[in-house]
Amino acid sequence: MPINSEAEIEITAFSWVPPFAQGFVRDLRPRWACEEMGLSYRERLISAMERPDWYYAEQPWGQVPHLRDGDVSVFESGAILIHLGEKGDLLPGEGQARASVLSWTLAAFNSIEPFVFELSNIEIFSKKEEWASLRRPSLLQATGQRLDRFQRALGDREWLAGTFSIADIAMVTVLRELERSGLLDDHPALSAYLGRGVERPAFQTALAAQLSHFEAHAPTAKQDA
Amino acid sequence: MPINSEAEIEITAFSWVPPFAQGFVRDLRPRWACEEMGLSYRERLISAMERPDWYYAEQPWGQVPHLRDGDVSVFESGAILIHLGEKGDLLPGEGQARASVLSWTLAAFNSIEPFVFELSNIEIFSKKEEWASLRRPSLLQATGQRLDRFQRALGDREWLAGTFSIADIAMVTVLRELERSGLLDDHPALSAYLGRGVERPAFQTALAAQLSHFEAHAPTAKQDA
Repeated sequence: MPINSEAEIEITAFSWVPPFAQGFVRDLRPRWACEEMGLSYRERLISAMERPDWYYAEQPWGQVPHLRDGDVSVFESGAILIHLGEKGDLLPGEGQARASVLSWTLAAFNSIEPFVFELSNIEIFSKKEEWASLRRPSLLQATGQRLDRFQRALGDREWLAGTFSIADIAMVTVLRELERSGLLDDHPALSAYLGRGVERPAFQTALAAQLSHFEAHAPTAKQDA
Repeated sequence: MPINSEAEIEITAFSWVPPFAQGFVRDLRPRWACEEMGLSYRERLISAMERPDWYYAEQPWGQVPHLRDGDVSVFESGAILIHLGEKGDLLPGEGQARASVLSWTLAAFNSIEPFVFELSNIEIFSKKEEWASLRRPSLLQATGQRLDRFQRALGDREWLAGTFSIADIAMVTVLRELERSGLLDDHPALSAYLGRGVERPAFQTALAAQLSHFEAHAPTAKQDA
């Protein structure tokens, strides 16, 4: 069990988030990477609802995760995955193997996740806005076309860069957020790839670790009022 | 002059793009990195208007740049910057220096550029759609708030991670696309940072190299018809 309060690696996560976000907060990514590589980590929980001012000095947008590794501080889950990947076997050190993992990792963060950001805004945060319902069809179409290309590029490979890597941690956690859109139903190879990712024991352990804190930190009726 | 048809490094760029995109195509990023580090590169030009089918096997979205470095193939401009940075002094090899460069590089690609993608869509590609004008105010507000945070995090530093790095190549090329939105007028420290970036001789040489091909490859009136 990698969670250990004496560990050199510290992952900052939220103590509680609203139900729609539970299981989808991005500290899942470094937790998953640590579980895959057997790296011990300790947790630091902060409030998502009242984000402490001091935290912005460590993470400019006030988001999680933030990673500390000894004296080294890292933010952005993509940078954190690269940092962790280099400590183990999830990011090869050189050649085409390294280039493929980096290419697909950045593809997840810059070529697929921006569609997810826009869709999540339309389907959750701005759901009641007139523009959101007007924009929805063209966004679903554009996202579907991007997924068509992605499915063709994946081909019949099990993992993006041959063997399982940080690129798969990035991409599986991105694709997972597209499940509710229904777009994966039209992309069976991507759906199967997502299934292979979330079936990994390390993913399941990481997910359970994120979810484990929410009940104890749920706002009470009194705090809500 | 790093451009050399015998070079090991090959950058794929478009032979011509419409005027609004000229000077903003993302092959600018690896060109700039090569110029900063004195790395020779050769160019491979493909058509943006009739993208060759074979190219999707190298770059899943049909976009530029694609990089070849000897036998190694890299796509996604962020991955290409990391690959190139490791060949020279634009991405430190270890410690906090490396972590800061990776954090800010990923911040450019995953925390700032997604706003640029949405704004560009609204202001250029989907300009005439009803949803675009309805969405514009809230998107400008959200982007402005993100830039507020970014400006505070930059503080009075000259470059994002202390000395000039691939993080600055990423972020300056992202911020440059926000100039027309007017949002930088309210963020003088970001505007000054952008100014420092584009004043660098290596940026100017890279920009000139991208622009140098467009006149010769412009579609003729006959091709347009």
